[in-house]
Amino acid sequence: MGKVLVIGAGGVANVAIHKCAQNSEVFQEICIASRTKSKCDAIKEKLKDSPVKITTAQVDADKVDELIALIEEVKPDIVMNLALPYQDLTIMDACLATKTHYLDTANYEPEDTAKFEYKWQWAYREKFEKAGITALLGSGFDPGVTSVFSAYAMKHHFDEIHYIDILDCNAGDHGYPFATNFNPEINIREVSAKGSYWEAGHWIETEPMAIKKVYDFPQIGPKDMYLLHHEELESLALHINGIKRIRFFMTFGESYLTHLTCLENVGMTSIEPIMYEGREIVPLQFLKAVLPDPSSLGPRTKGKTNIGCIFTGVKNGKTVHYYVYNVCDHEACYEEVGSQAVSYTTGVPAMIGAMLVMNGTWQKPGVYNVEEFDPDPFMAALNKWGLPWQEDFNPTLVED
Amino acid sequence: MGKVLVIGAGGVANVAIHKCAQNSEVFQEICIASRTKSKCDAIKEKLKDSPVKITTAQVDADKVDELIALIEEVKPDIVMNLALPYQDLTIMDACLATKTHYLDTANYEPEDTAKFEYKWQWAYREKFEKAGITALLGSGFDPGVTSVFSAYAMKHHFDEIHYIDILDCNAGDHGYPFATNFNPEINIREVSAKGSYWEAGHWIETEPMAIKKVYDFPQIGPKDMYLLHHEELESLALHINGIKRIRFFMTFGESYLTHLTCLENVGMTSIEPIMYEGREIVPLQFLKAVLPDPSSLGPRTKGKTNIGCIFTGVKNGKTVHYYVYNVCDHEACYEEVGSQAVSYTTGVPAMIGAMLVMNGTWQKPGVYNVEEFDPDPFMAALNKWGLPWQEDFNPTLVED
Repeated sequence: MGKVLVIGAGGVANVAIHKCAQNSEVFQEICIASRTKSKCDAIKEKLKDSPVKITTAQVDADKVDELIALIEEVKPDIVMNLALPYQDLTIMDACLATKTHYLDTANYEPEDTAKFEYKWQWAYREKFEKAGITALLGSGFDPGVTSVFSAYAMKHHFDEIHYIDILDCNAGDHGYPFATNFNPEINIREVSAKGSYWEAGHWIETEPMAIKKVYDFPQIGPKDMYLLHHEELESLALHINGIKRIRFFMTFGESYLTHLTCLENVGMTSIEPIMYEGREIVPLQFLKAVLPDPSSLGPRTKGKTNIGCIFTGVKNGKTVHYYVYNVCDHEACYEEVGSQAVSYTTGVPAMIGAMLVMNGTWQKPGVYNVEEFDPDPFMAALNKWGLPWQEDFNPTLVED
Repeated sequence: MGKVLVIGAGGVANVAIHKCAQNSEVFQEICIASRTKSKCDAIKEKLKDSPVKITTAQVDADKVDELIALIEEVKPDIVMNLALPYQDLTIMDACLATKTHYLDTANYEPEDTAKFEYKWQWAYREKFEKAGITALLGSGFDPGVTSVFSAYAMKHHFDEIHYIDILDCNAGDHGYPFATNFNPEINIREVSAKGSYWEAGHWIETEPMAIKKVYDFPQIGPKDMYLLHHEELESLALHINGIKRIRFFMTFGESYLTHLTCLENVGMTSIEPIMYEGREIVPLQFLKAVLPDPSSLGPRTKGKTNIGCIFTGVKNGKTVHYYVYNVCDHEACYEEVGSQAVSYTTGVPAMIGAMLVMNGTWQKPGVYNVEEFDPDPFMAALNKWGLPWQEDFNPTLVED
């Protein structure tokens, strides 16, 4: 049916491209482009038996001109931005210039401020409307599937949703005392940033990692989880009518946090270079070189992820509780597409979002978050494409 | 009265040289020699107002020929070895060749095996006897003062000593989450090595850090302490008649141990080089560059050390308990000699040992540990030269 241009060649891109190739009725051609063309070629090579036509290209996604030239050459129906969130705006500009649909999985943030907010991308609404093209923001898992879960709950099970708790549990074990799935700097920023949640119409800020709960996750068991700010809180607070409170919790193991704190304490996570034997070395970069290569974690990670939402609200005057979640197995993901569950749970929804835009189901000129569309086709596709969800109308609630 | 050649120019040497300079009746000339002459010159400069004549020299203490040439030029009465314990044997060889008395503060260990044993140095006994010179081994604090405490207890308060617990507490706080007073590799080896103690005629080995006790130290308060192997156990087991058990405990804070373990877990304490941007870098060396410079800790370390021995035995048929210890204040030490208490408590006994050999009080051809001499003049000198001791005949005992 159509052609997609994927920008990025990391773990999430690898999954999304594998899933597009499995879905060859929709995706007949895929162009993979990134700063390092050899990474694109490596993904292409893994899919050499696929019926889908795959090409690769080199592009610097910071440069709008390069992006426009590439889009004009490839002529895709949609650009899937699976590169860094710093590049959302340049890619959106190139899509506008070429009137091409746009999709991403994480909202734009300026590289220097680390502010997660939608304001920069939402400012493109009118431009995308006028250009007659769709920008689908945050079509990963969280944001993405968690937002679709919310729209689905609202549509089928509630008249009003008052409370949402989003619970992100990664119980994967790679067998190392400490390793990070990606840049440890991002991990550190996550746990050292202030937390926040939405309540009664405004944000409530908490000290970093100040709110800790234990939750007994289905198919996993009890895990420590911590309240964090997360970007879907901002859009859900706007799009779910009657909402009184939304919180986001992510699990972290005690050992993981202890290692991170100690490394931070001694200065090994600093991005300020030090002089070492006559040249500047950034401690964090050296730490990354000492730690296990993130790409080596995939084949050895065992265990599951469980990400979902617990809703409390009313339907026909009665209080309703509803928990919808997906459980994903690291080893099964790796066997299927060569990436573990953290990448898998983001890459599959990216493919689904692109499919729904391309086949017209979710096409509407403007800039939208996923919860603004009909959730049903997305929910059906999750079951079909590897992220089946389960529901529970009598869940354990997160204690207040 | 005489002339001393000090080999080494680190923290302990700095203290010992300051103390020799204070004791100018005994030490009329001091030559300071080390691999890096500028470090010797820096100590000399600090003592420029001293009545003692100070000279400096460059020497590679791994090379017996260089050492012999230096000793023949300087003609000292005694060589104080305050360099690395790897160099004990080369310096002893040079003393033999030049018939010069020898003193050190830590027993020889081969650089590659990390075995703390006296056998290599005790093998020199006959040679030193024949040469008519004295080698005084282990004249620091522990070994050193703890051994003199044991000889003093035996001489004055016991017919038989059955149990000795040596307790080394450093309650200094430098205000950093983690820093090491010296090479972190040595710290790591200490806490990752098996512990051992002497009981009923043989060594009992324990898993690393397996035996933990809390002890309420006089002038400090309760601290966690761990059973370690320590070199004076070997010589005291031989030299204290009737001994049934000797143990050594050192305090470590929980935070210190957590940081050390985390750094070890991630590979930052490894001495195996990794490739980083095209050249080999040893993680431990890089870690040292990131950590606070040990020499910067002195001026900011507050708090005290308390090192001593608790003896249990019999006198005139009655059970006797006896605790003798020194409390030393980091800030007071720094103010006096520009080094904190860890260096001070080792450097002062080195000066005292050298004085007793030079003035003939402890002169006897052969190789001896400090507890083999009359403890009384050493005990008196401790009170005079900055390490006053206290005693308690009703101490809290270490629980079994």
